[in-house]
Amino acid sequence: MKKTAVVSIGLCGLGTVGTGVWKHLARTRAELERRLGARLVVQRVAERDLRKARSAGIPASRLVSDALDVARDPALQIVCELIGGTTVAREVVLTALAAGKIVVTANKALLCAYGPEIFAAARRGGGHVFFEASVAGGVPIVKALREGLVANRFPLIYGILNGTCNYILTRMEEEQRPYAEVLADAKRLGYAEANESLDVEGWDTAHKASILAYLAHGRWVKTGQMLIEGITKITPTDIANAAALGYRIKLLAIITRDFDTNEVAVRVCPTLVPRRNVIANVNGVYNGISVTGDVVGTTLYIGRGAGQDATASAVISDIADAVTLLRCGKSMPTPDELPRRNGLKLSPLARMQCPFYLRLEVRDQPGVLARVATVTARHGVSIESVLQHPSPHPRAASLILTTHRSNEHALRGTVSALQRLGCVLDEPLLLRIADFAN
Amino acid sequence: MKKTAVVSIGLCGLGTVGTGVWKHLARTRAELERRLGARLVVQRVAERDLRKARSAGIPASRLVSDALDVARDPALQIVCELIGGTTVAREVVLTALAAGKIVVTANKALLCAYGPEIFAAARRGGGHVFFEASVAGGVPIVKALREGLVANRFPLIYGILNGTCNYILTRMEEEQRPYAEVLADAKRLGYAEANESLDVEGWDTAHKASILAYLAHGRWVKTGQMLIEGITKITPTDIANAAALGYRIKLLAIITRDFDTNEVAVRVCPTLVPRRNVIANVNGVYNGISVTGDVVGTTLYIGRGAGQDATASAVISDIADAVTLLRCGKSMPTPDELPRRNGLKLSPLARMQCPFYLRLEVRDQPGVLARVATVTARHGVSIESVLQHPSPHPRAASLILTTHRSNEHALRGTVSALQRLGCVLDEPLLLRIADFAN
Repeated sequence: MKKTAVVSIGLCGLGTVGTGVWKHLARTRAELERRLGARLVVQRVAERDLRKARSAGIPASRLVSDALDVARDPALQIVCELIGGTTVAREVVLTALAAGKIVVTANKALLCAYGPEIFAAARRGGGHVFFEASVAGGVPIVKALREGLVANRFPLIYGILNGTCNYILTRMEEEQRPYAEVLADAKRLGYAEANESLDVEGWDTAHKASILAYLAHGRWVKTGQMLIEGITKITPTDIANAAALGYRIKLLAIITRDFDTNEVAVRVCPTLVPRRNVIANVNGVYNGISVTGDVVGTTLYIGRGAGQDATASAVISDIADAVTLLRCGKSMPTPDELPRRNGLKLSPLARMQCPFYLRLEVRDQPGVLARVATVTARHGVSIESVLQHPSPHPRAASLILTTHRSNEHALRGTVSALQRLGCVLDEPLLLRIADFAN
Repeated sequence: MKKTAVVSIGLCGLGTVGTGVWKHLARTRAELERRLGARLVVQRVAERDLRKARSAGIPASRLVSDALDVARDPALQIVCELIGGTTVAREVVLTALAAGKIVVTANKALLCAYGPEIFAAARRGGGHVFFEASVAGGVPIVKALREGLVANRFPLIYGILNGTCNYILTRMEEEQRPYAEVLADAKRLGYAEANESLDVEGWDTAHKASILAYLAHGRWVKTGQMLIEGITKITPTDIANAAALGYRIKLLAIITRDFDTNEVAVRVCPTLVPRRNVIANVNGVYNGISVTGDVVGTTLYIGRGAGQDATASAVISDIADAVTLLRCGKSMPTPDELPRRNGLKLSPLARMQCPFYLRLEVRDQPGVLARVATVTARHGVSIESVLQHPSPHPRAASLILTTHRSNEHALRGTVSALQRLGCVLDEPLLLRIADFAN
């Protein structure tokens, strides 16, 4: 390709992200073209909703209604899938890759569900997949893992990957208000979707964790193979208890790899993080990721995890990388696209170890603490601290236990046994405590 | 190049970094080769000190004493300059680039002093320069600015770029001990060089700031065009005063660009940073950089800024990028290598604006505050707060003023005038206060 080469781009989907990409690409194109030595033309835009297309200012001559027409168009070299979901989006991505195109996508749910199929299609067709925008918005964490930290193996990656949950938890802490109230507010302000479950139940975080695990360890971990818990059961009292113990509650994705046993584990759960930890101080809609490499040590990456502009920044950087690759003749697989046959196993979730936080609502009567302590002892769980508060229930108390490092299996057994005690009201709340320093 | 291509690498210098690169490259080579689809061979190592070479386990057959022999060797495609300094290192880099090779360097002093010459040589020879290790050790901040945030313009970049200074300031705060004592300790522990001036006087930070400014704005700013102050005059009292006012003192590099006037300014100075700011909580030998892009918003990058392993991680990622480039046929300039003719001007230092912290040692006698306040008012500087403490001097007091946003020129005038007052003992200490939120 010569310096004056033209790169033709197709954009599928004019939602928040698609509109942002169109807008910012128009604004930054001159500078990008100068730096990349190629002309960038958004030749086709697929959107069914004509009003959206008109308000974004898409010329009618470039507009099509069927995204598959964009995926198949032989004149296009790069196809941006910004439709979302896992049905049409999957078809678009697979069709474009079968045609040997480079695909840029922000779709974490799609990659998590169909990653192996998508990357196999890219290898077969000689195309590529870029997905910087799928994790942590505009923070270049995909590039960091793919390229910047290529000399490292990763015993621990963890972080806050969902801005909606972090916004809700931050406001619950700052205003001592219950989850449902803050959620309603977040919806009104546009920080939570009308159907919030993908975010607050931890699924969105799990999709992103799956992508980070793939980048770091070369293996796709499905959501069914992870421990996934959301933030809906957290109360302002839990947040206050955590604060009294020196922690903040954050919804974390935690990806651990044990190089001795060659096992990887992925979990998503609300976690008590020591307040002096940088990640504990990542608040509001910000995401923060801690990456520990065996050579580099711990590095941290923080920024807005979502939003039109931050996500558009990431999509445009992927387009720039795609242009560079095209100008190179597209012969290079990116490092993580080579399949790894490293015998990596999934660590059984029941074997995971950490300290725990357990909140029980119990009848306020003599002997309750003794009965609870007998159950924990029987399961080999050693208690580190006990707090007791008045409970929202009449004639009841909230009992908050923290444990020394124990395993998940023992704690789950403890919780089941406790639930069978007549003196324990409600379902106990079990949270994990982060025992890593950075 | 075929998949089984061999890439030949020359390593110049077996100091801390060179030894680390040799060691970690040996350890990670198999995995790197699989991911990059090429064999990596460190064909030549240049080191005059035979003991160093022997203790690193360099085979005699690969060892040469003159780094220029490596730079000239036609069998090598990548030359790593890890010698340091700006004399031999410059010759090595220019010679390798003249021969069309790819140069990987960790040498910030060299790039800051000779950046334009080096990049011109790369363009002329058809070679390239990679320098991830020159700023913030293993944190991939160069890649983030070069590629990940390519859609952005950067109104503000600031951060902690020198681990030695941050270590000293952190320990001064934690232990309330004076600078000289902590410096001596840091030397004993290997956190400061025998000749510490490059670090503590701010020069090392300035070299790195110059590289960040080049990446963000396409222009080399020389140290003579920056405001540069070190940390040697900071006392535990200043740190305590800052804490009382809600700040931590950090040696910051601050790169601002005004897109209306098209001016850039680079300054390196100990700065009061609000304690809630993430950068204020980056302690010890860690570096932390805040990058505000006009599209992505604010993103932050944190990690160990130096040390054998962190730096080797960055050098090896550059080698991987160089291999990718070689496999592409090396035809691509990296985005920042194209010269930009954007009419960018340097902002006059005297015009820079921020709030200030001013510590004066004054005679403890009536009327002193009135005289000081008269001088500040005459210079148009508006005082925000006043603290007074007993001074180390007998019959004297420490007077700490903070000002509203003022300009550098007015403050310097104020300080000169104050020094001429008979009641002001010693040289006043003038520090800047960060007025950015993230």
